[in-house]
Amino acid sequence: MITRPTLLLDKNKCLTNIERMVNKAKRNNTLLRPHFKTHQSAEVASWFREFDIQCCTVSSVKMAEYFAHNGWTDITIAFPTNILEVTAIDDLAEEINLNIVVESIETIQYLEKQLSNPVGVYIKTDTGYGRTGVDADDYDTMQQLLRVLKTCKRLIFIGFLCHAGHTYNTTNKDEIKNILNVSRQKLLALKTFMANDFPLIQISYGDTPSCSIVEDLSDFDEIRPGNFVFYDEMQAHIGSCQRSDIAISLICPVVAKYPSRGEIIVHGGAVHLSKDTIKDAEDHPYYGVAVKFDGQNWNSGDVLGLVSKVSQEHGIITVSDRVMNQIKMGDLMAILPIHSCLTANLMKGYQLTNGATVEMMI
Amino acid sequence: MITRPTLLLDKNKCLTNIERMVNKAKRNNTLLRPHFKTHQSAEVASWFREFDIQCCTVSSVKMAEYFAHNGWTDITIAFPTNILEVTAIDDLAEEINLNIVVESIETIQYLEKQLSNPVGVYIKTDTGYGRTGVDADDYDTMQQLLRVLKTCKRLIFIGFLCHAGHTYNTTNKDEIKNILNVSRQKLLALKTFMANDFPLIQISYGDTPSCSIVEDLSDFDEIRPGNFVFYDEMQAHIGSCQRSDIAISLICPVVAKYPSRGEIIVHGGAVHLSKDTIKDAEDHPYYGVAVKFDGQNWNSGDVLGLVSKVSQEHGIITVSDRVMNQIKMGDLMAILPIHSCLTANLMKGYQLTNGATVEMMI
Repeated sequence: MITRPTLLLDKNKCLTNIERMVNKAKRNNTLLRPHFKTHQSAEVASWFREFDIQCCTVSSVKMAEYFAHNGWTDITIAFPTNILEVTAIDDLAEEINLNIVVESIETIQYLEKQLSNPVGVYIKTDTGYGRTGVDADDYDTMQQLLRVLKTCKRLIFIGFLCHAGHTYNTTNKDEIKNILNVSRQKLLALKTFMANDFPLIQISYGDTPSCSIVEDLSDFDEIRPGNFVFYDEMQAHIGSCQRSDIAISLICPVVAKYPSRGEIIVHGGAVHLSKDTIKDAEDHPYYGVAVKFDGQNWNSGDVLGLVSKVSQEHGIITVSDRVMNQIKMGDLMAILPIHSCLTANLMKGYQLTNGATVEMMI
Repeated sequence: MITRPTLLLDKNKCLTNIERMVNKAKRNNTLLRPHFKTHQSAEVASWFREFDIQCCTVSSVKMAEYFAHNGWTDITIAFPTNILEVTAIDDLAEEINLNIVVESIETIQYLEKQLSNPVGVYIKTDTGYGRTGVDADDYDTMQQLLRVLKTCKRLIFIGFLCHAGHTYNTTNKDEIKNILNVSRQKLLALKTFMANDFPLIQISYGDTPSCSIVEDLSDFDEIRPGNFVFYDEMQAHIGSCQRSDIAISLICPVVAKYPSRGEIIVHGGAVHLSKDTIKDAEDHPYYGVAVKFDGQNWNSGDVLGLVSKVSQEHGIITVSDRVMNQIKMGDLMAILPIHSCLTANLMKGYQLTNGATVEMMI
């Protein structure tokens, strides 16, 4: 019996999401190196092994340590390398096949000097997102970096890695396909341009919207989506999934009702869901979607209302009169999160629909 | 040596913040029952004991269990009671002096029937915030609740509890004083109206902006501010504190620089700071204030830039050319959080400026 905010994980939905992406990668003959920052759980990671996935992506050295400790021996840290962690990186590289991401000569030279073990290196490449990476069109800088990398003994250049995060800013599938095509062209052009010096260059691409929506991913040597393992309301909004594909929900007890203003208060707020929002049809932000919960499973087709506000522990659900009348104090609602990565990170653990608990990195 | 995102706590600033509020409560002859949801730490709580604070406020049963386990014997859970947790509440009430908050007859009757130990009860009273509680002007409902409470054997009515969270929506001190005055008048009127039946009624008031800004709090039997223990950029923005009073900062390594767009990337994002924002002078949201860090202490007077964007692990700091030129890869920046409660909750622990670690509730 759930009595407190609890992050419920539907293993069947999760396995279906994994299998769908595994099959797509197979059809495209590309390596699936899933990003594990979404679930941060050795047990969920082990479900990928059942589909013969042996490589993964993480977003911090700490997370790489956690998964290495749990038997993962081929890990890419897809975050600009923090030179202060060079000792931790070197220690990891002694144990596993570790890849990192660089984008400045300063960092490359520092790492080459300090590392004693070989580490795979990608150049973080910006194909239009504008967050991190060398501009994919800036061949001068690319050549400067590659000239230095060519002389390195510890840093083994692998290729170009890109995260097209701007696919999150649209709900138009054609626009997402276009972002992927632009990224593909830029990465392939780089690959061709550098092919004489580095004939084995690889291109690594990631993000759940494009990997979910686009069928042809065959030009990429590997793909690194992560969120698809659970999906969330953001991905349903973008069009990467259906609400029924979302594999986690936050189960929340009803603690107060305000019929006059059409609001129900649940225990479940910013410390459970995060403060990530998307806008509804009337341009109001919302923090999650409350759906019916029968004590074991949620029904994503039976929407009770939107989470219109949160504070530290409170979630405020705006509901219709019909819903107000059917909900009573102590009922449990399931909230589909806006951003499953941040919700999972806050909850620090899962409960399966059969009642078992699943641990994650602390 | 800090190499990863680390939440640094300046104990001296924290003790000064505690002492200032303790002295204000003493001058007003009101009980300070600080809210511990901000720090969630038995060690920080123990610093309050040095000022002879024996009572505290928390926002969940789980947090009450944590502090009870750490020697706190007089705790108010200032969150609408979740009837599903009645067993946990009853167990706690067997060990400590526990107070809870109710606002419906349904909840009162359920608790009275299920509890075997006495529990103190406040009626959650809404003086204008509009989140939870019975409208302070709705004497009919108040009387209905009190009629039922009068017959209770387990639930011991204490008084009216109010959180004037609307003080967070203004940066005008007169408006904050006005919110407090309206709340005071409404709570005093209720106290007077019910005095015949309940001569010992208490009124409990809380929120850091009003308790920081207003001098005269003498009409309240107790005050329950919490955030003041650390303060944050939000409170500095509201006017509750100076930036120099903020007692925590997130230390973040610099991992990338983009001079052409005036942006520096640090390791420190939504999973460290949270996604809480306030608006700058040009109405752009920001997620924190980056200030100079000398390896041991930060200097809140030396602002390097604002955190203009965050993703899961990235913080994007917008800086001037002058700052861009002085910062290099691997430098550490200190980020003053927008909302210290959410940042502390995410970081799950502190490091003191002398290098010692301080644990918190997991």
